[in-house]
Amino acid sequence: MDLLKRRIIEDGTELGTEVVKVDSFLNHQLDIGLFMAIGKEISRRFGHLGINKILTIESSGIGIAAITALYFDLVPVVFAKKTQPNTMTEDFYGAEVKSFTKGTVSVARVSKQYLNPEDRVLIIDDFLAHGEAAMGLCSLVEQAGGTVCGIAAVIEKEFQGGSKKLRDAGYYVDSLAVITAIRDGQITFKD
Amino acid sequence: MDLLKRRIIEDGTELGTEVVKVDSFLNHQLDIGLFMAIGKEISRRFGHLGINKILTIESSGIGIAAITALYFDLVPVVFAKKTQPNTMTEDFYGAEVKSFTKGTVSVARVSKQYLNPEDRVLIIDDFLAHGEAAMGLCSLVEQAGGTVCGIAAVIEKEFQGGSKKLRDAGYYVDSLAVITAIRDGQITFKD
Repeated sequence: MDLLKRRIIEDGTELGTEVVKVDSFLNHQLDIGLFMAIGKEISRRFGHLGINKILTIESSGIGIAAITALYFDLVPVVFAKKTQPNTMTEDFYGAEVKSFTKGTVSVARVSKQYLNPEDRVLIIDDFLAHGEAAMGLCSLVEQAGGTVCGIAAVIEKEFQGGSKKLRDAGYYVDSLAVITAIRDGQITFKD
Repeated sequence: MDLLKRRIIEDGTELGTEVVKVDSFLNHQLDIGLFMAIGKEISRRFGHLGINKILTIESSGIGIAAITALYFDLVPVVFAKKTQPNTMTEDFYGAEVKSFTKGTVSVARVSKQYLNPEDRVLIIDDFLAHGEAAMGLCSLVEQAGGTVCGIAAVIEKEFQGGSKKLRDAGYYVDSLAVITAIRDGQITFKD
């Protein structure tokens, strides 16, 4: 997705060789016009799969998932929580998720009410790096007996191996901008 | 907003006399069609104020803020973070926020880049209870020299005093559904 790649080059910041910071448009300040283009492109790539639910994880995935639902006939969006609020009183599905960015391990939780065997789920996240969050979300869907139809990441850091791990596990993965290397202040994209 | 009140009555769950749980459509599973109606209504109430930025706090405010921006000419959405990720390397504005629901105190942070003196800000959140989160967000805007044009909550629990506290401090507050009491499994709305 050229618009997105250009934006990453113009407004992204490299932190070392592992991290690209896109705070100005993707995960702190949100450019909703760009989110609409992202949602439309995700729909172009995943729209034929009979998806009836979108699943993401707090916090950065939520805005992208909400806008993307506009292009999927307003299917429900569910976001997994990383802490257990005292309003989550019923049973939940849980999966451990390690965040390399934050250096923490948390449990992603979804109330059992909101994932079901009939669900055909699109998993959305802002970044796909080591694949830990996506793998955890797949586990939640499958604990409920649902089907993971695909995993859409806005930005993939291919060199961190997440997409390979997910594809090896049989999942359909497609990312809008695939970064193959961050070196000497230069971001290299696939293609 | 009648559509919303009906939805709270039909799908909300009371937990004691303090908490109404709206996980099925507002803050765990998200009904994006309802969010569009919410965004449109917020625009009807706040659209004349020259707002050029929407500010919310992770996580439950993000989806509502993102969809609401569609009705405010796609103004940027900024969400305050409750933890400091290792990509937040620059200076930030911070304000302490107590969560009565989670029983925690956290610091709401926004990078100094994303709040400015020119900002005319609409603050959005899913709930307005004791007003702690909204008060913290107002502080962030004002630390940056910006203007708080208004505070829009989807659901206000008036009996917890947040709106009074905010209005006493001079802010314009308007909530789409105002709950005056939760008693004997019954939710009472204002009007």
